[in-house]
Amino acid sequence: MLYIIGLGLGDEKDITLKGLEAIKRCTKVYMEAYTSLLSFGLSSNGLSTLEELYGKPIIVSDREMVEEKADDMLLQAQSADVAFLVVGDPFGATTHTDLVVRAKKLGVDVKVVHNASVMNAIGVCGLQLYRYGETVSLPFFTDTWRPDSFYEKIKRNRTLGLHTLCLLDIRVKEPTLESLCRGKKVYEPPRFMTIKTAIEQLLEVEQNHGEAVYNEDTSCVGLARVGCEDQLIVAGPMKQLLTVDFGPPLHCLVIVGNTHPLEEEMLEFYAIAKGSAQA
Amino acid sequence: MLYIIGLGLGDEKDITLKGLEAIKRCTKVYMEAYTSLLSFGLSSNGLSTLEELYGKPIIVSDREMVEEKADDMLLQAQSADVAFLVVGDPFGATTHTDLVVRAKKLGVDVKVVHNASVMNAIGVCGLQLYRYGETVSLPFFTDTWRPDSFYEKIKRNRTLGLHTLCLLDIRVKEPTLESLCRGKKVYEPPRFMTIKTAIEQLLEVEQNHGEAVYNEDTSCVGLARVGCEDQLIVAGPMKQLLTVDFGPPLHCLVIVGNTHPLEEEMLEFYAIAKGSAQA
Repeated sequence: MLYIIGLGLGDEKDITLKGLEAIKRCTKVYMEAYTSLLSFGLSSNGLSTLEELYGKPIIVSDREMVEEKADDMLLQAQSADVAFLVVGDPFGATTHTDLVVRAKKLGVDVKVVHNASVMNAIGVCGLQLYRYGETVSLPFFTDTWRPDSFYEKIKRNRTLGLHTLCLLDIRVKEPTLESLCRGKKVYEPPRFMTIKTAIEQLLEVEQNHGEAVYNEDTSCVGLARVGCEDQLIVAGPMKQLLTVDFGPPLHCLVIVGNTHPLEEEMLEFYAIAKGSAQA
Repeated sequence: MLYIIGLGLGDEKDITLKGLEAIKRCTKVYMEAYTSLLSFGLSSNGLSTLEELYGKPIIVSDREMVEEKADDMLLQAQSADVAFLVVGDPFGATTHTDLVVRAKKLGVDVKVVHNASVMNAIGVCGLQLYRYGETVSLPFFTDTWRPDSFYEKIKRNRTLGLHTLCLLDIRVKEPTLESLCRGKKVYEPPRFMTIKTAIEQLLEVEQNHGEAVYNEDTSCVGLARVGCEDQLIVAGPMKQLLTVDFGPPLHCLVIVGNTHPLEEEMLEFYAIAKGSAQA
């Protein structure tokens, strides 16, 4: 049996009782590392907090391992209980559908333990979840690669008056271009897109396209560390959010569509005029 | 402090460690009842399972209490730690934004403990969460009330190739019309829309509008009891899903938009031709 277990968004205590019980049953525990470095303290304390809670060692699986070596894990799961831990929900922003498909093809039973992900926890800002359109991902621009297909999607959402959740790029364990050329991988330091960078890129793309989809006065909500003890939520026009220091990652951004009065009341609590607010 | 704590989707063990610790700190524990009768066994065993786990009594709050008498709960939360338990995530399909707004106005600190909701757990069917458009709610039709504003929304989603999550009506503690006339409330038995009823209503509305937004051959996924031990997921055209007995509530339905190959692979696992599948 392969258990794919969501850890939630905040810290080690966001696991469910069901998830914890499953881990305790498993002979091997893998954890995907590439979005989980921060909240779960993997960079500083190693895995100690989690391993202490679970009472067993964790094998940290980076992106390469998950994508290339998953078959080893799946083979183990054919004859034993194996846990694969995922930050957020197993089918949240980072999907693990591919792993499930591979497991099913190998005849491995899969059990999913759900948890919160940014896709539903974003509701904390007060904008109703059913009033969101398609979610977009904003990738880091480079000198030569400035993809902007999100612009068309945001345009469609705004035409319909819907909110847009923008997921911001995460770059963990990216090999340097130089190291790839040399054939021995050396990794870039991790990078997490800030709300400031996201807005700058959004405004650049608006300037290039010029279709007046949004501008620096467009109402947005910036959210940092959703679900964590020190989460920060600030609502305001893009140009104001550019001036806010949202602190450590992860950040995400909502471009506000048409609002109901109740949604407006909630946004007022998070407005810059009143100072930044936590909830 | 008011803790608004998500219980997740399945059973009492879907609470997070953080949520459970918060409950143990609280002097009063309220629980919203109107979507939670089933999975958590409230109808049969009373509250015993939950109260045993929490080590304290639970005050079950029906919709009237939450909407009309929330101020009592909030006043208590001004001077003590009070928990309000919610099935799913506090800001999932049923939102509690209004409660947060009222708390903030009274100066009551609010802490949210997130959990899975159908809005992210729906990812289990293999359709990518960021490829969903606006979520729609399908209300029970009556002889005189057959609202169909969802049709326009589904049309927009399908035009864009997006998936549509249809949340199906829940009627719990609805006063009978007769009792309202007499001035003393008597309640209807609870009703939960099935996937079959949902599809019948969808096809009726299509027939009335005739805009070819979908038809009985449109690919859908029916999901019953998402996140529970006995969840059932079946993919197929509407006309096939009409013939499936999905069992007890809660049900929901996804109208499939354009699919990627990986999404198609997952849907095949759940296809009727192969027999109904669980995950």
